[in-house]
Amino acid sequence: MTDFEENSWKPHEECGVFGIYSKNAGEIPPAYACYNGLLALQHRGQESCGIAVNDKGVISYSKNMGLVSEVFSDSVLNRLQGHIALSHVRYSTSGDSVRENAQPLVMRYIKGTLAIAHNGNLTNAYELRKELEKNGCIFQTTIDSEVIAYMIARERIGAASIEEAVHRAMQKVEGSFSLLVMSPQKLIAVRDPNGFRPLCMGKIGEDIVFASESCALDAVGAEFVRDVEPGELVAAGPSGLKYLQSPAKAKRALCVFEYIYFARTDSKIDGLGVYETRKEAGRLLARQSPVEADVVIGVPESGIDAAIGYSEESGIPYQKGIVKNSYIGRTFIKPTQSERERSVRIKLNALESEVRGKRVVLLDDSIVRGTTSGRIVSMLKEAGAKEVHLRISSPPFLWPCYYGTDIPTKEELIACQHTTEEIAEMNFADSLAFLSLEHLPSMLKNRCTGYCDACFSGEYPTEIPDYMRDNKPNDYCTPIQRL
Amino acid sequence: MTDFEENSWKPHEECGVFGIYSKNAGEIPPAYACYNGLLALQHRGQESCGIAVNDKGVISYSKNMGLVSEVFSDSVLNRLQGHIALSHVRYSTSGDSVRENAQPLVMRYIKGTLAIAHNGNLTNAYELRKELEKNGCIFQTTIDSEVIAYMIARERIGAASIEEAVHRAMQKVEGSFSLLVMSPQKLIAVRDPNGFRPLCMGKIGEDIVFASESCALDAVGAEFVRDVEPGELVAAGPSGLKYLQSPAKAKRALCVFEYIYFARTDSKIDGLGVYETRKEAGRLLARQSPVEADVVIGVPESGIDAAIGYSEESGIPYQKGIVKNSYIGRTFIKPTQSERERSVRIKLNALESEVRGKRVVLLDDSIVRGTTSGRIVSMLKEAGAKEVHLRISSPPFLWPCYYGTDIPTKEELIACQHTTEEIAEMNFADSLAFLSLEHLPSMLKNRCTGYCDACFSGEYPTEIPDYMRDNKPNDYCTPIQRL
Amino acid sequence: MTDFEENSWKPHEECGVFGIYSKNAGEIPPAYACYNGLLALQHRGQESCGIAVNDKGVISYSKNMGLVSEVFSDSVLNRLQGHIALSHVRYSTSGDSVRENAQPLVMRYIKGTLAIAHNGNLTNAYELRKELEKNGCIFQTTIDSEVIAYMIARERIGAASIEEAVHRAMQKVEGSFSLLVMSPQKLIAVRDPNGFRPLCMGKIGEDIVFASESCALDAVGAEFVRDVEPGELVAAGPSGLKYLQSPAKAKRALCVFEYIYFARTDSKIDGLGVYETRKEAGRLLARQSPVEADVVIGVPESGIDAAIGYSEESGIPYQKGIVKNSYIGRTFIKPTQSERERSVRIKLNALESEVRGKRVVLLDDSIVRGTTSGRIVSMLKEAGAKEVHLRISSPPFLWPCYYGTDIPTKEELIACQHTTEEIAEMNFADSLAFLSLEHLPSMLKNRCTGYCDACFSGEYPTEIPDYMRDNKPNDYCTPIQRL
Amino acid sequence: MTDFEENSWKPHEECGVFGIYSKNAGEIPPAYACYNGLLALQHRGQESCGIAVNDKGVISYSKNMGLVSEVFSDSVLNRLQGHIALSHVRYSTSGDSVRENAQPLVMRYIKGTLAIAHNGNLTNAYELRKELEKNGCIFQTTIDSEVIAYMIARERIGAASIEEAVHRAMQKVEGSFSLLVMSPQKLIAVRDPNGFRPLCMGKIGEDIVFASESCALDAVGAEFVRDVEPGELVAAGPSGLKYLQSPAKAKRALCVFEYIYFARTDSKIDGLGVYETRKEAGRLLARQSPVEADVVIGVPESGIDAAIGYSEESGIPYQKGIVKNSYIGRTFIKPTQSERERSVRIKLNALESEVRGKRVVLLDDSIVRGTTSGRIVSMLKEAGAKEVHLRISSPPFLWPCYYGTDIPTKEELIACQHTTEEIAEMNFADSLAFLSLEHLPSMLKNRCTGYCDACFSGEYPTEIPDYMRDNKPNDYCTPIQRL
Repeated sequence: MTDFEENSWKPHEECGVFGIYSKNAGEIPPAYACYNGLLALQHRGQESCGIAVNDKGVISYSKNMGLVSEVFSDSVLNRLQGHIALSHVRYSTSGDSVRENAQPLVMRYIKGTLAIAHNGNLTNAYELRKELEKNGCIFQTTIDSEVIAYMIARERIGAASIEEAVHRAMQKVEGSFSLLVMSPQKLIAVRDPNGFRPLCMGKIGEDIVFASESCALDAVGAEFVRDVEPGELVAAGPSGLKYLQSPAKAKRALCVFEYIYFARTDSKIDGLGVYETRKEAGRLLARQSPVEADVVIGVPESGIDAAIGYSEESGIPYQKGIVKNSYIGRTFIKPTQSERERSVRIKLNALESEVRGKRVVLLDDSIVRGTTSGRIVSMLKEAGAKEVHLRISSPPFLWPCYYGTDIPTKEELIACQHTTEEIAEMNFADSLAFLSLEHLPSMLKNRCTGYCDACFSGEYPTEIPDYMRDNKPNDYCTPIQRL
Repeated sequence: MTDFEENSWKPHEECGVFGIYSKNAGEIPPAYACYNGLLALQHRGQESCGIAVNDKGVISYSKNMGLVSEVFSDSVLNRLQGHIALSHVRYSTSGDSVRENAQPLVMRYIKGTLAIAHNGNLTNAYELRKELEKNGCIFQTTIDSEVIAYMIARERIGAASIEEAVHRAMQKVEGSFSLLVMSPQKLIAVRDPNGFRPLCMGKIGEDIVFASESCALDAVGAEFVRDVEPGELVAAGPSGLKYLQSPAKAKRALCVFEYIYFARTDSKIDGLGVYETRKEAGRLLARQSPVEADVVIGVPESGIDAAIGYSEESGIPYQKGIVKNSYIGRTFIKPTQSERERSVRIKLNALESEVRGKRVVLLDDSIVRGTTSGRIVSMLKEAGAKEVHLRISSPPFLWPCYYGTDIPTKEELIACQHTTEEIAEMNFADSLAFLSLEHLPSMLKNRCTGYCDACFSGEYPTEIPDYMRDNKPNDYCTPIQRL
Repeated sequence: MTDFEENSWKPHEECGVFGIYSKNAGEIPPAYACYNGLLALQHRGQESCGIAVNDKGVISYSKNMGLVSEVFSDSVLNRLQGHIALSHVRYSTSGDSVRENAQPLVMRYIKGTLAIAHNGNLTNAYELRKELEKNGCIFQTTIDSEVIAYMIARERIGAASIEEAVHRAMQKVEGSFSLLVMSPQKLIAVRDPNGFRPLCMGKIGEDIVFASESCALDAVGAEFVRDVEPGELVAAGPSGLKYLQSPAKAKRALCVFEYIYFARTDSKIDGLGVYETRKEAGRLLARQSPVEADVVIGVPESGIDAAIGYSEESGIPYQKGIVKNSYIGRTFIKPTQSERERSVRIKLNALESEVRGKRVVLLDDSIVRGTTSGRIVSMLKEAGAKEVHLRISSPPFLWPCYYGTDIPTKEELIACQHTTEEIAEMNFADSLAFLSLEHLPSMLKNRCTGYCDACFSGEYPTEIPDYMRDNKPNDYCTPIQRL
Repeated sequence: MTDFEENSWKPHEECGVFGIYSKNAGEIPPAYACYNGLLALQHRGQESCGIAVNDKGVISYSKNMGLVSEVFSDSVLNRLQGHIALSHVRYSTSGDSVRENAQPLVMRYIKGTLAIAHNGNLTNAYELRKELEKNGCIFQTTIDSEVIAYMIARERIGAASIEEAVHRAMQKVEGSFSLLVMSPQKLIAVRDPNGFRPLCMGKIGEDIVFASESCALDAVGAEFVRDVEPGELVAAGPSGLKYLQSPAKAKRALCVFEYIYFARTDSKIDGLGVYETRKEAGRLLARQSPVEADVVIGVPESGIDAAIGYSEESGIPYQKGIVKNSYIGRTFIKPTQSERERSVRIKLNALESEVRGKRVVLLDDSIVRGTTSGRIVSMLKEAGAKEVHLRISSPPFLWPCYYGTDIPTKEELIACQHTTEEIAEMNFADSLAFLSLEHLPSMLKNRCTGYCDACFSGEYPTEIPDYMRDNKPNDYCTPIQRL
């Protein structure tokens, strides 16, 4: 099973971005750097991907539905010649109906060509679109990047430079954005004032690299420089680096679920290693909700880190108790309803020798709708587990996310509809515990001074427009379907 | 050989359009009508094609590089449900570097969704683009349809209806356009004031059909109603048909090369059958440039009609003397230079029994760069023809076209560089004659009251901006290449 | 419309073969020669195609379902390096269920590698298969080539050379075969003793070429040398050409339908030009079944040659009265039954100006099941034809073919079920005439001394086994379906 | 990274087989059972795969190059109707040049249709092929299954039943084979007398299932019944199960590398759980080659099990210290040599927080050519590891395998060319130890009474022909290349 399929019962990140500004020839051709960078960020989006390169203002690009390894061939990468490049992976929703929405968005405007790659979700996209349409603008996609493109194009008219235009435009958009913009001469990285989504900066020799996560820097052999700060704009150009800071003062609000699930376990975000926080969540759970047991097991892949932490803290031995099939692919075929119920069994299999006759602590990162955990618990019991104690390394989901994550509506969130006891029962677990909201600062080692836990707490760091609260964030766009 | 390959030595039309407004369920599902209509218009463009359907304002569409028979499958057509549809074929330039340029262009604007399909070439696209960019507009393609879309979107703000907005926009664009616009409720057809490109109207029961050529009406079983008049707008909507006429007075200027080569021989344009004019060109040539000969032969497919006319007028028997291979396909593979020189021989073969020892009159429709005719003449001589007299059913190309045809620069036009005698010699022909400019009215049976023959005469019916005269019509757009 | 689609209402040839033995480097790389040769033979089969090349005994090959232009790319041709090559086109039956059956058949046997390409149909394939199976042989396809391969492999054991083995094997198989065999060192061509299927020989410099039809020699620039004689084996090898003649005496029996429909009009078969015989058929029909009329029209493409002949003999002017769409493609989509009835109209369109108010003589080459002609006649009448007189340039089909043509069973043959008058009426024709059986010698200009007209006359030149007469020629093979 | 890529520096299994005999309708359609079974066996071969189903003697099948998830769609599976099915995954060698070699092999023979799927390697295939060729047999592939097919077809002549024919044929072939044979009415499973390759049997209700590994039984919800015994034939047919035992007495010789690396960790083979043996190897290494260290890490995926065992035995804590990228895909693109050297870094990344400043014990399953381990050690050291002690959970490879594994020649085997100390140094490891040959019985918990460790010990359980010892096992087949 690829994570893709596993993701079917998890919340999803919207995107990942990667860009490189290569002063001279560069250590590695920019398109290949993007390819490797996107492979490392693929967990952030498997629907579509794209790379745009810039050869002195002339942009070449390739984007399509599919995984990075499916969309790009050596021959295409070879033809993507240029000294600046920018790239994107996008989360998979449904079918290829959204082919137009693949990024980067490439276009011409008053100053030549422009390419944009965006991770996040604008909370005032609706108002901006309506305003633009009233002025005769047309929209060929439903992505926020097109709104951002217009904002930049309009600010560019009176601005002295592209970075000034981007800087001005960024003060008019609201919500979450980790953004890369490629002009004929520059590569610009911006992070929203709250810093909802991660964005970091590295270098390979004299080349400057920006990426959603540090694991992508590692993948291209780049040295980590630092995170782009909330509200900061960094422009790499022929005359070096330039920094601008948003005048807006905003609460730091990195999405805490990046640590819990979204980010790759080997990334560091805002100074904190993801693996450490996951193991810490396991340790905290061991203290918060201890249980007598024989073995600690994690649901692969994401539950394993917390399981190791739980084991360390509790002294109960860690074992590989569930094996994942790496070959399921994106188009898993299920013939019948009974098959569908068994589909977890095709992706995951219990290691009977490790669970038979044993009391098992099972670690997972989250419960959303709540059916999948039950299937895994059943599988362990069928393999002979005497007891299964479910420990979830995050608090229960109770609130929607407006910042670029597809947490479902309250009606679908099991924790909104049921008590922890009921959920335990529905999942055939002998006991169930969620990491408490109060433990999040400890999980973050008290080092992450500001984070967003709105999906757990309901405390949104920014104002949310009413029409969004009414839960139809995309209804303002008449649907267009590309077959 | 498909005409596609034959086209490599011919000028090209830019596009063909087809649309249908189906009041009720309709006789034939609109997407299937478009499919059949596009098949009949495929000779007008083989690079890319697309169909958009409208189901009460919700647009579904499919477009891609390739022939109609390659791009559309039964399953896609089945999913293109809607009561209004609009479609497009586009001429093939190079590779798929212009994938973004496939039409119809589909977008959202202040009043919902809009789809546009355009045949022609705006002569003020550059000025309009620059003006729009100065106002903060962005462009994702290089096609005129995107400029037209902005013009309509802007006019829509103050207009009472979409047809009024289109009507106003049409008064601001210059050049050639046969245009279809699909709004949530209506299908609108417009033809430029000069009527450069054909556009006609038919009906199937209560359904209204618009098509570039009448052969597409035949293909869908539609009854021909009439041509859309130069400067006319016809809107089909829930309350029936509505007509608007452009206030601009302009010379009627249908492209005469539509009769000579572009249009399908079974089409009628502005009241005149194409086959009749082609046969008439052959008859006129027989009178204008008679020759003693044993047999009249046409270069397939387009030269055959004129050959039949020449035979009728001269009394010299018509024979099939050249056979065309229908299976060459679009990606004809030529390994070596010597192969390339022989490539005509793979597409065409002489019928030795009909030419050996004979004096041949060979009819073709045009000579552009001039190398291909020579290869055909050589082929006939190698097959034993005693003499080959080349008769061309159009005057020599001397001037570029700014209205949507890719006639090359003067440097490449053989008739700009050489006398008729020289061209005859270069083509190994025993004699050569072009239809004279003066015969064009006769060819059109004196029934076509206004036509454009600028590529032969240099008399352009509209003003041409200087930068276009300087022969770089598309340089204003920074190139973007989609791989 | 490609001929492919037209073929849906015509009998089909089974295959075409092309091979080249290049002594040295050769004028043209053998794989490219095959590619061009197959393009010229594509009308003989559009289901699948393949090329095998031989580089000193090492065979490389590529074969697949699809047209030549679809299956082969420049990169594949480039990799098909070798000095001997052999290739095949196969007729399309249904879907890709017969993928295994694509030719050439390539295999290893006692003496190394062997490749076989076969056009024809063995009448004792069943007995040979059974015999081989009794000896423990296994079959991976249902094509006769596999039977032939076994026969050669077995004869090779006691034979002094591959050509001797092929020669011996040929004396054990019965029916029709024009066969190419490629051994590590030689290219061998064989034609069955009756000479049912055409096979000719040409040269390019020192290179030897074999092809089903002479038009393929023209396509590769080869000089026609002569037809391979019935019963003859020609082997091209390092020590030059070698000829063997079958000891069996057999009646010459070239399939007369090759002249009437199968072969390309620019081919010469056994010394007689195909176009000439088709025109002659028209002339003969004009004398045999004259009619007062205003215009002669041919059903494209195959009816046009006879129409020209009819016009010449009758003095009634020939016109292009029907236009064919070249872009229909192989996968023509028909949504509804009513559409299906109209499908002829999408492929063919009447030229109203040439038929309105006129008495039309319409030439076609054959009537099989008989529904299509009626649709064409209707189309002409709807376009205003006053009368339509159908003239068929072959006698009525009354008997099945066992030599490699898919003429249907008597139950489906309209001429077995109805009188000519009834057929005329069913086809809405004002009169109908078939070329009489007695005129075939004249059509062949009394120069073709032996031909097979069994499908018209029922006189089969060889014995037909009873199980074949019982009309289930392939039932002996348990069906295997490759999806 | 999929295991596919990881495999590039590992030895490879040749194949996996899965079959199902469904008496009635069955719980699950046989083709879908195969699909799920093959997904679970995909680690045994990623080059090509195929499924054949049998509907009362009529076989339908689909096979192609690619992963199971790529080759099969829902629509193909739906069309694979039948009550018996058999399927195969094959190991990837190079390109699609071996397309013909995809299995199952499907053919017709004296008794109708037959399909064969084979895992293993015959050691007398050469002699059998030669013998068969001398009798006039032809070969269309290079796979042993074709030889086996001939053997069965020949034995079938005098045999009373298909199982008898298979039984007899099995006594003539030598080497390793776990074989499935599907006749019109039966599904037969056979395992060679030494039992080199695993093969087990399960049931779902009344349906009988055979699979290379028990994890495939789990994946289809089948209950494990027992292993097929070495030398045993099990036939499932309309009258139930039938068992035949090979008369040959042979040493039990299950490939020990199945436990070490080939099999999936959740499989049980011949009564012994794979995970248990891997963990035991880690424990044994901890006793055999202890080291003072701070953390134990496994190279994902296969090194992790041994790492957990090492940790348990040594008390040194286990950590996830290396993260694997699951999205690399099969066609990993590497632009330059320097890139190639860094390619391990794209697939694997060190978790700096877990290794910085630490003494690391690194567990891996084997060293073949020896370059990859060095790159992983370097990566850990660059991430700050103070020491890296490499522990390999198998003895050094010193001998080739003739039973279906691609262990390279002695020239390429690092352990044949260098001492353990040299290998440690070449891999930048502070110490290196291989599991000693003497520990294998303990690793197998003294429960596996007979196994083959020839690749480590050179003691082959069967005689190996000289020409095989000379290291060119496939040279007897003239190469044929399908492009």
